[in-house]
Amino acid sequence: MDLSTAEIVCLGNELLIGVTTNTNATFIGEQLTKLGIEVRRITCIRDDLDLAVEFFHELFQREPDIIIVSGGLGPTYDDIQMEVLSKATNIELVKTSKALEQIEKYYSSRNLSLTEEREKMAYLPSNALVFDNNVGSAPGCHFEYNGMNIYCLPGVPTEMKDIMTRHIIPKLKEVNNEELIEKKFQIFGCVESQLAPYINDLKNEYMNLYIKSHPAYKDKQGIVIHISGVGSEIKTQVEDAISKLREYFKNNFPNTKIIDLEE
Amino acid sequence: MDLSTAEIVCLGNELLIGVTTNTNATFIGEQLTKLGIEVRRITCIRDDLDLAVEFFHELFQREPDIIIVSGGLGPTYDDIQMEVLSKATNIELVKTSKALEQIEKYYSSRNLSLTEEREKMAYLPSNALVFDNNVGSAPGCHFEYNGMNIYCLPGVPTEMKDIMTRHIIPKLKEVNNEELIEKKFQIFGCVESQLAPYINDLKNEYMNLYIKSHPAYKDKQGIVIHISGVGSEIKTQVEDAISKLREYFKNNFPNTKIIDLEE
Repeated sequence: MDLSTAEIVCLGNELLIGVTTNTNATFIGEQLTKLGIEVRRITCIRDDLDLAVEFFHELFQREPDIIIVSGGLGPTYDDIQMEVLSKATNIELVKTSKALEQIEKYYSSRNLSLTEEREKMAYLPSNALVFDNNVGSAPGCHFEYNGMNIYCLPGVPTEMKDIMTRHIIPKLKEVNNEELIEKKFQIFGCVESQLAPYINDLKNEYMNLYIKSHPAYKDKQGIVIHISGVGSEIKTQVEDAISKLREYFKNNFPNTKIIDLEE
Repeated sequence: MDLSTAEIVCLGNELLIGVTTNTNATFIGEQLTKLGIEVRRITCIRDDLDLAVEFFHELFQREPDIIIVSGGLGPTYDDIQMEVLSKATNIELVKTSKALEQIEKYYSSRNLSLTEEREKMAYLPSNALVFDNNVGSAPGCHFEYNGMNIYCLPGVPTEMKDIMTRHIIPKLKEVNNEELIEKKFQIFGCVESQLAPYINDLKNEYMNLYIKSHPAYKDKQGIVIHISGVGSEIKTQVEDAISKLREYFKNNFPNTKIIDLEE
């Protein structure tokens, strides 16, 4: 089965100058992967209209099924996500009553009135479906362009998560319902390069699985092995690969300790 | 003055599936920015030879002065950084004695011998300058391609930082010695959209400065304003912009509190 493909785009100078770590991409990447969607690229770009439009033109040529854009939906001069997408797709931005209502509600509950900058957030692609934001002022949205599904999110992590969780994940689940099977182990008592030839062989035997070893970053001890795959027929393959892995350690490294890691 | 431009490339499925947050890009982005280098893009790509080579072909067309690649230098089958770069540049990989020495030293100190997988890490572009790694097994390197400077780093954060700090930053300092002036303030007592028109005007007045407001994420109170610029003539401009900002708050929001944030 061919997986749906996705790209994640994060807009904002703060990501490029090292002021902010891109935890949004981690969250979005994890959620898409759990839905059985293959994330092909994550790109962080500057708040620069021309560079950003050029980037989207390239991206559209790669034709991923799903594009998730985060950052640049707010009221300030450098919040240019909608302007960029409109210029890159030639889809007009129109003042959207549902978006305007949510923006008005957000500010009036804070005793603040609408201004030109706040109203700007109600201008969305003419074919957009509006997603309300329970945490902040800027609504998100979804629209289609040349068969690609573009989802637009604010960059503030709590706002991004709110819209992802309540709107986008349920929408993606309707079409991407392949179950992801994922197992993780931590191995103590051998080094990664000792495993490399065996992991290579295992990978060649199970071409449909994602098999990868890496050093255990958090507690800095041992090696972590991931085995995962997507689709109904994959469960047996994951179990087979795990049995072989355990057998291999028993025969070759009898003193290693293997711990199952919970997700 | 035109800044040097850079792109950061992070190789590794773990970044795309949400297993690892890309703190490497944060560190590298911050360091390059401090050297007065403009980071244009950060891209995370999968451990997939064809997709990665395709990505580098596109990247080379954009001709950034500096390309920093992190991840995929280790001994396992999916550590393909060198294979990707060799295929994308048509520069042959050769077994490099300086790299081999460091790899041998690393493993022999752990009572482990060289294997094919470990030796693989000594194959570097034929025109490469080798950077030893004080923390792990994989050496880094620098090589030139079509006038672009490509720096290759492992993905394990401690190893990446070791090679960045001891080798790459000193090398970049030789040619990029523009001082970065940077000031940050935290403002309490008004919301971001109230500031937006003024920040916009200030930005238009000081075209050479980076001026940006964003919500204060960490303690979730108030707004943070960044003002920065690069070059010897920028200091007066930053000071002027700051005076105007303080004056603006005094006149328009007499009850706001302004705190200088240390770097």
